[in-house]
Amino acid sequence: MQLPRGPTRRPRVVIIGAGFGGLEAARSLRNRDVDITLIDRRNFHLFQPLLYQVATAALSPGDIAWPTRSIFRRDKNLTVLMAEVSAIDISARTVTDGRVVIPFDFLILATGAAHSYFGHDEWSAFAPALKTIADALSIRERLLRALEQAEFSTNPVERRRLMTTVIVGGGATGVEMAGAIAELEHRTLSGEFRNIDPVSARIFLIEAGPRVLPSFPEHLAAVARASLQSMRIEVRTGISVTDCNARGVTLAGGEHIDAATIIWAAGVAASPAGAGIGATRDRAGRVEVCPDLSVNQHPEIFVIGDAATIVGANRSPVPGVAPAAKQMGRYVGRVIAARIRGERAPAAFKYRNWGDLAAIGRKSAVVSLGRFQLTGYLGWWFWGIAHIWFLIGFRSRVVVAFSWWWSYLTSQRGARLISDRDRK
Amino acid sequence: MQLPRGPTRRPRVVIIGAGFGGLEAARSLRNRDVDITLIDRRNFHLFQPLLYQVATAALSPGDIAWPTRSIFRRDKNLTVLMAEVSAIDISARTVTDGRVVIPFDFLILATGAAHSYFGHDEWSAFAPALKTIADALSIRERLLRALEQAEFSTNPVERRRLMTTVIVGGGATGVEMAGAIAELEHRTLSGEFRNIDPVSARIFLIEAGPRVLPSFPEHLAAVARASLQSMRIEVRTGISVTDCNARGVTLAGGEHIDAATIIWAAGVAASPAGAGIGATRDRAGRVEVCPDLSVNQHPEIFVIGDAATIVGANRSPVPGVAPAAKQMGRYVGRVIAARIRGERAPAAFKYRNWGDLAAIGRKSAVVSLGRFQLTGYLGWWFWGIAHIWFLIGFRSRVVVAFSWWWSYLTSQRGARLISDRDRK
Repeated sequence: MQLPRGPTRRPRVVIIGAGFGGLEAARSLRNRDVDITLIDRRNFHLFQPLLYQVATAALSPGDIAWPTRSIFRRDKNLTVLMAEVSAIDISARTVTDGRVVIPFDFLILATGAAHSYFGHDEWSAFAPALKTIADALSIRERLLRALEQAEFSTNPVERRRLMTTVIVGGGATGVEMAGAIAELEHRTLSGEFRNIDPVSARIFLIEAGPRVLPSFPEHLAAVARASLQSMRIEVRTGISVTDCNARGVTLAGGEHIDAATIIWAAGVAASPAGAGIGATRDRAGRVEVCPDLSVNQHPEIFVIGDAATIVGANRSPVPGVAPAAKQMGRYVGRVIAARIRGERAPAAFKYRNWGDLAAIGRKSAVVSLGRFQLTGYLGWWFWGIAHIWFLIGFRSRVVVAFSWWWSYLTSQRGARLISDRDRK
Repeated sequence: MQLPRGPTRRPRVVIIGAGFGGLEAARSLRNRDVDITLIDRRNFHLFQPLLYQVATAALSPGDIAWPTRSIFRRDKNLTVLMAEVSAIDISARTVTDGRVVIPFDFLILATGAAHSYFGHDEWSAFAPALKTIADALSIRERLLRALEQAEFSTNPVERRRLMTTVIVGGGATGVEMAGAIAELEHRTLSGEFRNIDPVSARIFLIEAGPRVLPSFPEHLAAVARASLQSMRIEVRTGISVTDCNARGVTLAGGEHIDAATIIWAAGVAASPAGAGIGATRDRAGRVEVCPDLSVNQHPEIFVIGDAATIVGANRSPVPGVAPAAKQMGRYVGRVIAARIRGERAPAAFKYRNWGDLAAIGRKSAVVSLGRFQLTGYLGWWFWGIAHIWFLIGFRSRVVVAFSWWWSYLTSQRGARLISDRDRK
């Protein structure tokens, strides 16, 4: 691969997506002799691991999102473009949003994943997933509005439906959502209504696999399940959902759970951006990449994070989690830097699994970092400190830590708003 | 007026609206021997004086809004209903939202005001006003998005339009908005773009009257104007707007200002709820009330806050500000309590004007409390402490104070998000 040469011509790197992968790629390249364009359809980077706390009214969107421009304001070789890429021209080496055309020497696709409804996209209207701030605000609104309606419902069946939430999917997101909803309904809202008692609100966690938290060791998953049950969350494993509709959820075998709020925390599908480069993709839509994360026959194009799947001998799959995306972003930065300087390429990408964390409500978490494992109260402290650590900037750390401390002491929550956004 | 009697029958007070007036009326009655129903179409009370800081990305909505239920959670004689009242039956003494019918012995209408476009409602699409959280988020989005578009516009005329904001109305809201936008564009965003310089963004403040801040003493208004001009805000007084459209604003005399963002901070009209009781209303839609704030021939119905105008000999008009609404709410609480106990009614309502405050950007404010007047830096501290004081609860006070302190030191802002809400 040849780079154009000239006195003023620096290699141009275009990164699509400012999630964990794209952000880390940009960071690892910002002190290199390259011109970077970081494109995202939003103007901010979102700390997705805490998005469920926005959905359950504990945090505001601004607490876990930072303007991409602000993160890179001192890096004059980096330009941020808020745009939705509509086409990638591989032979001309350009990307465009229909307004501007941006040439690249290296392209990094870091467009992430969306939720998959396993071929039942019609379920999305009844069972929103949790990927964006819009999703989180929509779930927050559904949860709070259902109880407002229950307070003045005179029909006991309807009231029971309004006070029922079903979470589909027992991975970390589903478990954390279930715990946070139990805290919200059974504790924060307790005593605030006059005709209903939110303490009696029902929460179901449905998992098709044999246990919750499949990525954790089995005994920690059992601890998590016991914690959930002690919070009066009904955990059902080994049973799949066959329908989601306006009345609720139908399970395999025909049981129907009447529920006003359904939250989808199950399958994942890569964003469709990978289709734009014409590469081979797996069933979940992820682009198959070489061991150096480049696309076959296109060493100048890389795909990272949830949008990629690595193929090759003895490759174990890399999980779709933030640390994996960050490692891939850093790795691709190193590959590009080596290529530009004509150095030897780094060895094939290897995912280093630091472990898994999942909070269960306000006082408990499971932590699995190899042989280092924690549960309960100690686990919760570890979980909290780890998450504060990974937030960006002093302000967010202080505001999130203070919000947690205050919620811990008072059981109150800071963002219990049913948005009037749609009313206009 | 007679109250039904019986061992279990307490007087029923229905309050429509949980703004400053309705909240204060509920507070003054919560320890009385009455059953209160507080109805609002939202689930929260909003601290409107700081709404402009949500519109300019300094605060999150959750920082200045509190769930009404939570405020009154310990008052078991008070029921909160989130609903939009669709009909008031004066003879049957009931209100309804179409689902539930709520009987009352006393009714307090505290439905507030909306902005008036002086008969040009078609302007609202181009020039959003600032009354609700939805308005604030919409303005925040317009301001931020215009600069994102300007960064990649190749047409200098269009770029100039995208970098121009016009605020219509030079009262406290307009002045505070103008100052906050100048801080945002000229300071926070400075250095974050590569193709444009937000420091050169233009801000116009248009006031039809002879000066800004008409409710302040003339010399303080002059100080405010000088402060605004020192922040490179172009202040135009004595000139009215004749058109708002997709291109910008046309002024009397024919001058047109090309502007991507127009903010309406001019006329006020009472909410239409007053029409539901069939009372006489003034040109701005406010219900004309007796000196005890009750409606003529309906001593059991009261109208307070921005929805009311007091008629009678020698009545000076009460301004549409939060302290006036709160005083009216408290007063009506006392009137109802006196009636129930068969005591003599309090003297006619008298508005006590404590004074006016307006912040101008990050380091300056004008304060006019009778003979006590402050400007500049000292004024800004007074303004800040007064606003923190009036927030509800420990959490909001800490978060807002911390956010201001942090913004003051870093010029950064905590909520610079272009919402993806409408993208779904």
